[in-house]
Amino acid sequence: MMHLAAFLFTPGSHSAGWRHPDAVPECDMEFSEYVRIAQVAERGKFDTIFFQDTVAVNGSGALDGVSRYRPSQGRTAYLEPTTLLAALAVVTQRIGLVATATTTYNEPYNIARRFASIDHISNGRAGWNLVTSQIEDEAGNFGADHHMLHAERYERAEEFYDVVAALWDSFGEGALIRDKASGNYIDPSKIHFQDHVGKHFKVRGPLNMARCPQGRPVVTQAGSSGPGMELAARTADLVFTAQSDLGEAQAFYKDLKARARKHGRDPSHVKIMPGLMTIVGATEAEAQAKYRDLQGLLSDENSMRLLARLCGDLDIFALPPDSPLPPLPLSNAAQARQRHLMDKAARENLSIIQTARYLGTSLGHHLLVGTPQRIVDTMEQWVTSGACDGFTLLSPHYPRPLEQFVDLVVPELQRRGLFRTDYAGHTLRDHLGVPVPPNRYEIANA
Amino acid sequence: MMHLAAFLFTPGSHSAGWRHPDAVPECDMEFSEYVRIAQVAERGKFDTIFFQDTVAVNGSGALDGVSRYRPSQGRTAYLEPTTLLAALAVVTQRIGLVATATTTYNEPYNIARRFASIDHISNGRAGWNLVTSQIEDEAGNFGADHHMLHAERYERAEEFYDVVAALWDSFGEGALIRDKASGNYIDPSKIHFQDHVGKHFKVRGPLNMARCPQGRPVVTQAGSSGPGMELAARTADLVFTAQSDLGEAQAFYKDLKARARKHGRDPSHVKIMPGLMTIVGATEAEAQAKYRDLQGLLSDENSMRLLARLCGDLDIFALPPDSPLPPLPLSNAAQARQRHLMDKAARENLSIIQTARYLGTSLGHHLLVGTPQRIVDTMEQWVTSGACDGFTLLSPHYPRPLEQFVDLVVPELQRRGLFRTDYAGHTLRDHLGVPVPPNRYEIANA
Ligand SMILES: Cc1cc2nc3c(=O)[nH]c(=O)nc-3n(C[C@H](O)[C@H](O)[C@H](O)COP(=O)(O)O)c2cc1C
Ligand SMILES: Cc1cc2nc3c(=O)[nH]c(=O)nc-3n(C[C@H](O)[C@H](O)[C@H](O)COP(=O)(O)O)c2cc1C
Repeated sequence: MMHLAAFLFTPGSHSAGWRHPDAVPECDMEFSEYVRIAQVAERGKFDTIFFQDTVAVNGSGALDGVSRYRPSQGRTAYLEPTTLLAALAVVTQRIGLVATATTTYNEPYNIARRFASIDHISNGRAGWNLVTSQIEDEAGNFGADHHMLHAERYERAEEFYDVVAALWDSFGEGALIRDKASGNYIDPSKIHFQDHVGKHFKVRGPLNMARCPQGRPVVTQAGSSGPGMELAARTADLVFTAQSDLGEAQAFYKDLKARARKHGRDPSHVKIMPGLMTIVGATEAEAQAKYRDLQGLLSDENSMRLLARLCGDLDIFALPPDSPLPPLPLSNAAQARQRHLMDKAARENLSIIQTARYLGTSLGHHLLVGTPQRIVDTMEQWVTSGACDGFTLLSPHYPRPLEQFVDLVVPELQRRGLFRTDYAGHTLRDHLGVPVPPNRYEIANA
Repeated sequence: MMHLAAFLFTPGSHSAGWRHPDAVPECDMEFSEYVRIAQVAERGKFDTIFFQDTVAVNGSGALDGVSRYRPSQGRTAYLEPTTLLAALAVVTQRIGLVATATTTYNEPYNIARRFASIDHISNGRAGWNLVTSQIEDEAGNFGADHHMLHAERYERAEEFYDVVAALWDSFGEGALIRDKASGNYIDPSKIHFQDHVGKHFKVRGPLNMARCPQGRPVVTQAGSSGPGMELAARTADLVFTAQSDLGEAQAFYKDLKARARKHGRDPSHVKIMPGLMTIVGATEAEAQAKYRDLQGLLSDENSMRLLARLCGDLDIFALPPDSPLPPLPLSNAAQARQRHLMDKAARENLSIIQTARYLGTSLGHHLLVGTPQRIVDTMEQWVTSGACDGFTLLSPHYPRPLEQFVDLVVPELQRRGLFRTDYAGHTLRDHLGVPVPPNRYEIANA
């Protein structure tokens, strides 16, 4: 059974998709548009929606001395993910609700609370996409000039996860008695303290919340560097990654599942769901025409700005755009994405501007253009050949391309028995087939 | 026109109210019960609901060497306020949504985002109750053994507010163009940077969100010490305070309004709404019987634990419970509440245990027991004699006492023309009669 997540990246994952005549770019700030998107994804029986996040306006950290702010014209403003997903819980019934929150600019106690709260509000549909931050613009909003180093961010993230996961186990089964006769509201013996003292955090606990319906909200991870894969292998129920080559995806899949096994986990409980953008047409010609239309809207300047953010200290604007993509100096932001781009450019002989356009088209994710049959052929090949457990679907804009996927591609997946025709369970763990973890303080009784 | 807030303090503001036969203590964790409460308050045309918050389990910081955790049996677990209020926005239409968040254990960028996001989701009904934290148990969840000092907390809070308020002005009118033809998504000249560098925070900005429907979410404040009043006078649209004596309330009111004037503000734009718990009966005898029933459920041990938290370094358990309340050594937690208790005990000659019971009954807030007429008489006297602009209603438990207030007291208020019979506006600022502030970066055009 394939798994599907609907990536929520308003106003669209194609950097110029919002310019398409069908696009509703107001979906960036309008709650009612988010409702529409979530309900379309639920109609399509997606496992979950998956909301990206950055705690800064992209490009805001760049100083050029003249006009300080040189934005790329696209994703700039949007609703805050945890409040948004809590609200979406009320207008959806089954679909999972995954929001991104960085371990670099948050406190574990606050994060543990919010995601547990969404899990309660949604009756077990919450997920936390744990990231270590990529865009360095964020640092300036939290007292720093740069991110802490990549390695240190992951070290902090490992500890952050441990604290959060332990906090989620604060309340044992039956801790809340609420016994009117005796006046005992809680059973203190079932309330567990963390007393965590580590390098980055000192957290006594307990969390002031009953254990949530899923035991723990689902944890997803999106870092694909070595430390990112280690963190994912140890902690993640779902992994989001950028893979556009079957062989590389298979290698990544095998590597990550092996790492999970090394951590004593059942590898089938780590779902690997690379990004995928689809452009669907009833005929091949129609699909290609749609693709050409979208590409006609791309701005090379915008695409170059997207690429520049992944170039570390290299001034990519100083090089001839038609020269081959040079090796990118290891950045402190997102190393796995750099490698992915370099591999892709090498494999396909892409110039700088071609690489930039690839990034501008699908955020550097796998792109499939074609009929539902052709698209499902490839999706089927990937899941049946050990390249992934499903996909995280990127929409060039909203809501039309998502509707088209639901109306054209999902039925084809269902016809081939690759995807559910209805939800079998109620929680996100049910949909993913990952079990509720036992409470660490009550293993003896579990 | 009187203003009313419904204090949300589950499972009840009376420390034993949850034991009442009518009480539904499951309202602590059950979202559907919060929905019921919010909808009752909206039916009663309340200006807003007002959710208290503590980022710890009360009593969890106390170590007694034997059984470490000596909880008071009551409020322990509940949903996280910002996610809860975002979800409640979807099931209510008009009522304001105020949530507490402390400036002591948060980052301004994260707080600015969440409250602005709730304001967008709710079409202009969000409010932020800015507190500096009281219960010291919180410190242990954020790397410390104690709060930073009271004075430093307020210094941090002043700066925190300035950063948040400036972030809320990041996007000027028309900053989001979304012009498909030109490809201009934003107008960079209308996106404002904060470049804040202060003692506690360094924040570049801008916030990644369009300015919200209320311009800024409503800001409420609940500190009543000198520094607390200064902060409120400068920044708050609504002030929550504990006042149980008419004369003292009038003095507080006059003092705070004068301070607001000194800060160049229109004093009528700072609404002062002390806490009020009501126990309503069709007859005086019925009301008194209800009160006696509730008091019969109180536990002296519980009440003493509540008092002990406000005693600073004094070991209140070591003193004879029937001796007069001694002067409390200034605590680092909540100084104004200490003074309020001492004043009350002196005025009414209360012993230690009597003071503890007062705290256990109404959290140290004004209590009125009687018929709707008698209760409204006092409420009318307070608002017409310059003691307050309205009240923050505490419920001994949920949802029955709130329903009774809405069904019995609100109609009497309306009959006397003291309270709205329907909402006139749509936003919380509309209800309170406090204007949308101009964007600080666009004063010239305002
Ligand atoms: C597919 C993918 C999606 C990501 N989404 C986010 C995101 O929403 N927000 C964020 O701050 N970082 C995001 N990241 C960044 C990673 O989670 C990680 O913090 C960063 O890439 C550095 O780690 P890496 O070198 O292991 O990739 C994403 C990374 C990948 C590969
Ligand atoms: C009526 C009232 C309600 C309060 N509610 C909260 C609250 O929900 N959470 C919190 O951390 N502090 C709360 N406080 C604490 C204050 O906001 C403030 O942080 C603390 O009391 C110290 O300031 P003070 O000495 O000025 O009162 C409250 C205080 C008062 C007087």
